[in-house]
Amino acid sequence: TSLPLSPSLSFFLSLTLSPPLSLGDCPSDKSRTNMTENGLLHPERVLTLDTMNPNIKRVEYAVRGPIVQRAMQLEKELQEGVKKPFTEVIKANIGDCHAMGQQPITFFRQVLALCSYPELLNDNKFPEDAKDRARRILQACGGGSIGAYSASQGIELVRQDVSRYIVRRDGGVPSNPDNIYLSTGASDAIATMLKLLVSGEGPTRTGVMISIPQYPLYSAALADLGAIQINYYLDESNNWSLAVGELRRALEAARKHCNPRALCVINPGNPTGQVQSRQCIEDVIRFAAEENLFLMADEVYQDNVYAEGCQFHSFKKVLFEMGPKYSEKVELASFHSTSKCYMGECGFRGGYMEVINLDPAVKAQLTKLVSVRLCPPVPGQALLDLVVNPPQPDEPSYSTFMNERTAVLAALAEKARMTEEILNKVPGIRCNPVQGAMYSFPQIQIPHKAIEEAKEKGQAPDMFYCMTLLDEMGICVVPGSGFGQRDGTYHFRMTILPPTDKLKIFLAKVKEFHQRFTERYS
Amino acid sequence: TSLPLSPSLSFFLSLTLSPPLSLGDCPSDKSRTNMTENGLLHPERVLTLDTMNPNIKRVEYAVRGPIVQRAMQLEKELQEGVKKPFTEVIKANIGDCHAMGQQPITFFRQVLALCSYPELLNDNKFPEDAKDRARRILQACGGGSIGAYSASQGIELVRQDVSRYIVRRDGGVPSNPDNIYLSTGASDAIATMLKLLVSGEGPTRTGVMISIPQYPLYSAALADLGAIQINYYLDESNNWSLAVGELRRALEAARKHCNPRALCVINPGNPTGQVQSRQCIEDVIRFAAEENLFLMADEVYQDNVYAEGCQFHSFKKVLFEMGPKYSEKVELASFHSTSKCYMGECGFRGGYMEVINLDPAVKAQLTKLVSVRLCPPVPGQALLDLVVNPPQPDEPSYSTFMNERTAVLAALAEKARMTEEILNKVPGIRCNPVQGAMYSFPQIQIPHKAIEEAKEKGQAPDMFYCMTLLDEMGICVVPGSGFGQRDGTYHFRMTILPPTDKLKIFLAKVKEFHQRFTERYS
Repeated sequence: TSLPLSPSLSFFLSLTLSPPLSLGDCPSDKSRTNMTENGLLHPERVLTLDTMNPNIKRVEYAVRGPIVQRAMQLEKELQEGVKKPFTEVIKANIGDCHAMGQQPITFFRQVLALCSYPELLNDNKFPEDAKDRARRILQACGGGSIGAYSASQGIELVRQDVSRYIVRRDGGVPSNPDNIYLSTGASDAIATMLKLLVSGEGPTRTGVMISIPQYPLYSAALADLGAIQINYYLDESNNWSLAVGELRRALEAARKHCNPRALCVINPGNPTGQVQSRQCIEDVIRFAAEENLFLMADEVYQDNVYAEGCQFHSFKKVLFEMGPKYSEKVELASFHSTSKCYMGECGFRGGYMEVINLDPAVKAQLTKLVSVRLCPPVPGQALLDLVVNPPQPDEPSYSTFMNERTAVLAALAEKARMTEEILNKVPGIRCNPVQGAMYSFPQIQIPHKAIEEAKEKGQAPDMFYCMTLLDEMGICVVPGSGFGQRDGTYHFRMTILPPTDKLKIFLAKVKEFHQRFTERYS
Repeated sequence: TSLPLSPSLSFFLSLTLSPPLSLGDCPSDKSRTNMTENGLLHPERVLTLDTMNPNIKRVEYAVRGPIVQRAMQLEKELQEGVKKPFTEVIKANIGDCHAMGQQPITFFRQVLALCSYPELLNDNKFPEDAKDRARRILQACGGGSIGAYSASQGIELVRQDVSRYIVRRDGGVPSNPDNIYLSTGASDAIATMLKLLVSGEGPTRTGVMISIPQYPLYSAALADLGAIQINYYLDESNNWSLAVGELRRALEAARKHCNPRALCVINPGNPTGQVQSRQCIEDVIRFAAEENLFLMADEVYQDNVYAEGCQFHSFKKVLFEMGPKYSEKVELASFHSTSKCYMGECGFRGGYMEVINLDPAVKAQLTKLVSVRLCPPVPGQALLDLVVNPPQPDEPSYSTFMNERTAVLAALAEKARMTEEILNKVPGIRCNPVQGAMYSFPQIQIPHKAIEEAKEKGQAPDMFYCMTLLDEMGICVVPGSGFGQRDGTYHFRMTILPPTDKLKIFLAKVKEFHQRFTERYS
């Protein structure tokens, strides 16, 4: 059976064989009768839906899912002059700051230009501190070029600067550059850490606790790895806070069918916009210590805290303040990125992870594993170096840098407040305060008749809602089902990134649509 | 048993329990008695060698393995003033062009600087063609910034430019931008394609054919995925050429224990430096068609062809020239990168893959899968755009670009010739011509006594040889065992990248060492 069947024979078989009759190891009839673009038969494709990696089929990533593909199609149609009830698609589906008009930080881009084309070091239009930073980075690169591979763990100088940043951020808690791994955005490091953790089969298969709602990188990575996803629910009625009782419930239920080994926390929250209290973080750490769970802290929004009385506390800092009983026991990986905060440099794919109490033998395995991909992108490493080592008060670029940084964060704070205020005025929409991060995850009431219609179409009700919102208003948000939500509740995630003027229009359109949609299906 | 044992109890248990006595689901004693840095006991670490992902433990990547760590240690000791029998470590372990002194292509870096800091578009020091390219790339980016995420498959404009490049390269064979996926270097795309292909368990588990010697990304990715590696041997006595008879032997043997589904070919060869003939490529394609194998063509060295009478033929081009019987059937993925050829921009992690005859349903799954990581680094995408769309004869940067490009390739050709010539003068070293790529993979005679000493040390004989070469001469090459070789033969891989002067010293040192080593152990 290793020789391909002739097209005509294959076609004959596919017509005449009834399903129970098997052809041994051959792929299914469906794949064996695939048509080519010219209408010819593919007698036997190697790679089909039936024969591909089954784990990958279970991967989902709503942030760039069908709703975004529809949005791009609508944009194309608008460009081609097709009439729509709107003149522009406003996308709030993804935390893509620059795409929404946010300007890059001047200092960062000056240094990147200098690193890219070191001729410019002779140009007196560039400030001296930018040149100093560029020289320092280039000296740490092989052959003085950002085109050389770096060490697989990342450029040593950058890892040292990251460590110093963490020490400053955490009020003196020590950090070791050997525990820093630079990465291709935070997603890369998170997926790598999860990969290390996965083992066992059946009831001993690794389970990983993730919040619901979650950022779907987690569910996607777990599906890819064939690991068990353990859901713990955030408390929407209590501003999406995390309660240890719920962690315990979820863990105990999971222990019956898998081996729970890790607990993932996102703070500030994506998609919730919640900022965890110091007390909550302490409780989570104590829980992880008691239950012997590896802690993964996704802290990529650490500068994005807006609400009065809220403050970012890193898991690392709280862990060390809890004393050696915890700081010498709990295994922690925390993640940061160049893509969020005030810089929003998503395209550079920069990031790092810090590991605490990682078994030295496992650390050697991690270093080996990352070496297979050679190194994270060096321009992203250079950018990360600037994020953790920005202009200082005595340097010429300081005031411009601070003005730019402050302006971005102030605008985000204003938009966070505005989003909450306007959405909460819409009957049938309820929205927790956006304390941090870049998202609101409002709950929406969907009328029974709309739920019925969605079911008829084979769509989740919130997908139906969001698709209708997109088609009628040109507003692109992501259905709550892509992040997870309690059964019978419906949400969407929107970013607060559109420029203030546009965000106002955006929110007005959501309001108008929700009222219209509710009336239509009542 | 979910509560941690107290340190003292754990210590007691580890002393008194004999191995057959089990503690149920607890990790092994070894992991339970790990010491902290302060000498305290870790009662129960979550993640240990015993409990981590077993596939990852099997991953190996010699190019950055123990020999390189030793080289870095030696460099540090030299810096600290420790006396060595050499004053400098010359590294030829990795194809890292810029680290070895190769200069970046001016035009590429000008455009990257302009994209990084678009203020420079007003600077009249930059040539107009560089500015045009930068404007064109920025217009294709969200918000006009390389800091925005791109589409997950890559910027559409860049994919179009890649397609046009392929059409030109392949003498008019059509290419569809929808079949182009930009990637984070070629490694990323290769690992992703392998991931899609892996399914089944036991005798139905996916097997993938790779050459021996191979580039260890392949063996590493297959180990990570738990897929079966099927070795086919290149013919060293015939200049490392690929023979279909050997493919058939390997395939038939493998069919007894797994499901062979893919065939990987590296051309020009890494580590062999061989350039495949058109006839060989045709034979391989016919074999893949007959045996229903998915073809993966690693063509990252496509510009690196030096030998008289050798020419690069892409698998895509040969496939289409073989007519619709093949071009409409054979599933092919071919890979390219910004890291090699004349540009050698490894740090940017740019690359692409073109897929041919991929099942549309699988293609949708591939697009979904890459969306989870959001997008390849945008600076690397911009760089790739320049590689596939370089200055044209009527543009101001053309002559500088061509001079730089030609100089790099001419120097490599000269070094390829020199490497072969000098190594073949050493008794006990035999080296095939370096027709292309950036490597020589000479066979070395290791005396019996040295093999015995290596065995006593628990080292592979060629690792022992290379470690001694490094310690005595400061020369860093990678043992053949990291790439695979026929049992009883020994090799090392060296790059031809050191500057000509240094390469001469390098080769003289290898010669001196080999003679001394042979005498010592005779």
